Amino acid sequence: MSTIRQIVTITKSQKATDAKNNLENFVDKINKHLQEYFDKELNNTSQQKASKQQINIRKHILKHIKEHNLRPAKRLRSSFIYYAYKMLHGKNDNAIINAAMSIELIQTALLIHDDFMDQDEIRRGRATTHKFYEEYHKGNNYKGDPAHYGNSMAINAGDIALCLGYEILGKSQFSSEKKLKALNKLFRGIANTAFGQAYDITLENKAQASEKEILDMYKAKTAVYTYENPLHIGAILAGAKEQDLKILSDYAIPGGIAFQLQDDILGLFGNPEKTGKPAHSDLRQGKMTLLITKALELSNTHQKQKLLLLWGKRNLNDAEAQEARNIVIDTGSLEYCKRLSIKWAKKAQEAIPSMRNKRWEEEGINYLDGIAQYMIEREM
Amino acid sequence: MSTIRQIVTITKSQKATDAKNNLENFVDKINKHLQEYFDKELNNTSQQKASKQQINIRKHILKHIKEHNLRPAKRLRSSFIYYAYKMLHGKNDNAIINAAMSIELIQTALLIHDDFMDQDEIRRGRATTHKFYEEYHKGNNYKGDPAHYGNSMAINAGDIALCLGYEILGKSQFSSEKKLKALNKLFRGIANTAFGQAYDITLENKAQASEKEILDMYKAKTAVYTYENPLHIGAILAGAKEQDLKILSDYAIPGGIAFQLQDDILGLFGNPEKTGKPAHSDLRQGKMTLLITKALELSNTHQKQKLLLLWGKRNLNDAEAQEARNIVIDTGSLEYCKRLSIKWAKKAQEAIPSMRNKRWEEEGINYLDGIAQYMIEREM
Repeated sequence: MSTIRQIVTITKSQKATDAKNNLENFVDKINKHLQEYFDKELNNTSQQKASKQQINIRKHILKHIKEHNLRPAKRLRSSFIYYAYKMLHGKNDNAIINAAMSIELIQTALLIHDDFMDQDEIRRGRATTHKFYEEYHKGNNYKGDPAHYGNSMAINAGDIALCLGYEILGKSQFSSEKKLKALNKLFRGIANTAFGQAYDITLENKAQASEKEILDMYKAKTAVYTYENPLHIGAILAGAKEQDLKILSDYAIPGGIAFQLQDDILGLFGNPEKTGKPAHSDLRQGKMTLLITKALELSNTHQKQKLLLLWGKRNLNDAEAQEARNIVIDTGSLEYCKRLSIKWAKKAQEAIPSMRNKRWEEEGINYLDGIAQYMIEREM
Repeated sequence: MSTIRQIVTITKSQKATDAKNNLENFVDKINKHLQEYFDKELNNTSQQKASKQQINIRKHILKHIKEHNLRPAKRLRSSFIYYAYKMLHGKNDNAIINAAMSIELIQTALLIHDDFMDQDEIRRGRATTHKFYEEYHKGNNYKGDPAHYGNSMAINAGDIALCLGYEILGKSQFSSEKKLKALNKLFRGIANTAFGQAYDITLENKAQASEKEILDMYKAKTAVYTYENPLHIGAILAGAKEQDLKILSDYAIPGGIAFQLQDDILGLFGNPEKTGKPAHSDLRQGKMTLLITKALELSNTHQKQKLLLLWGKRNLNDAEAQEARNIVIDTGSLEYCKRLSIKWAKKAQEAIPSMRNKRWEEEGINYLDGIAQYMIEREM
């Protein structure tokens, strides 16, 4: 990341550090709840009336989802549910942490499906689900195609995690009215996320997109899903009104776009040990990012020819990846995207005074204020 | 189907014919509601604030889901929601038909995902979703692998249809308490269906399973999903109690197993024009059915060697398929499975008197009684 720091200097602020610390404390808390949830599910499965073989395969999948879910993760989405609830004067800490687990199960579901679509082999430092079950097939000497078995099991595991995520919210300790309102918000939000993912892979297969289309895709795929939906759900569970949700959206959409721009930068320049993603995977996959399209737009003929050769090259080596990164730096695309992420993060923070005007709890407001900053400083 | 009729004679009963007619009337009604639902969704999508390209891709996927959903279908699951509600004295016809659409969207979702797993190219007489988007990729001269794009779009389209299905139930015109109870039942039911599907493909890749394991898989995958869940949901929306659900389960589990046994028979001996599935696809895929494992169990050495060669042979021709079918007939496996389906259908009907004792509405009771019979007579 040193290259970036040399281009745009971000002064680490105290509120970003505080938000980071709060997020880390939250991670410890929710991980304990998730651990307990999975252990209870596994125990219930052992006691089901079914053939031994069926129970074994169910437990195998659940154990995998548990292990996948408990790999080091930011837990940003569930923290938004938690802090939005607290900010809107919600008092039941235990109930909201339990409800917040829902989005982490759903996140696992979407990652499992996305990793198949992106043909990634590593997620958070360990095998993706389709690779995991491909190896399982080989280890058991099954007949048929191990890769197709792995892919199929990943589709099922994702479907299971998605339904369990919804169920967690549906069974949480809030009134039926609130839960139903939150669930309806979530159903539409996840459908829109899948539409956004379809838009993303279509742009990727078209191999061309304008800046407007890419930012529009970031809004659909990331800002709504990672920021707006969890904030709305936490607020709804605290009894929020429509105008409260509007203020949260004013923060969420720009905040989510800033987050995604930084995600792209980390995908190209980040340390794989910190990000948990294999080196060069965005480049190899030909991922459609503003970082790349802006570099293509700003490049001279030679740079452009070179970058088009490297972008999407499946067997890209380290030297070639460095060449591509140099073009993104030399054309000014990295600086452009970094500045844009700062601009969107500031725009998100402009919604903070409206929250103070509503006399929402300071703890939550400060968290959102700080996280907007921290998410464009982060290295994982 | 003439071969089967010669082996076990089923006298067509009046109540089966009545149930069939009621189901056909229901199909007309729900199809109109589904058509309206999709048209409204498409219209809403046109008015969304997003780039033109994003709206186009959203509409393209929605149109495909609509076309897929409106292909000729039995609508058995939604009819169970409808008739269970009526049977338990539910009065709001329009509300229950709207709510019943949910399971049809979910069914589309699961079919789209299953067809990818089974690598089927035809569903209800037209292209499966992954094949449809593979062709779309080719037609647009996109870069990258058309088949992988098709597969990825199918995963997204399935995820979208699943979330929309849940949303339909969540937004239906019933009380929050009832809807939440129904949704929680459905979340767990669909998770269990995906577990059942994972169990199915694992048995298929192991290429061996006992009769007990197969019937257990039919229970997990079909009986709970196709019979028990929709009946419970309709009953819950009418205000059913736990003991009412128990009676419905006594009908649903055996009824669902009988249904699946007949499905297997149609998969091997049915007319592709009626079933909408390509000829020999169960054989080519190496689908794990009792029909096959029983034939292997009852076969002599020569028959067994032959059947093991043909079962799962990807490029199986018509003559080879006929050979496999002859072995299933000659070993007595077809007769065994047909008799078993009759036995399970009768077992389902044994729950009917308990329904009469509860003074549930006759129309619904007669429907369930007749459908148990009709589902093992059907040719599609």
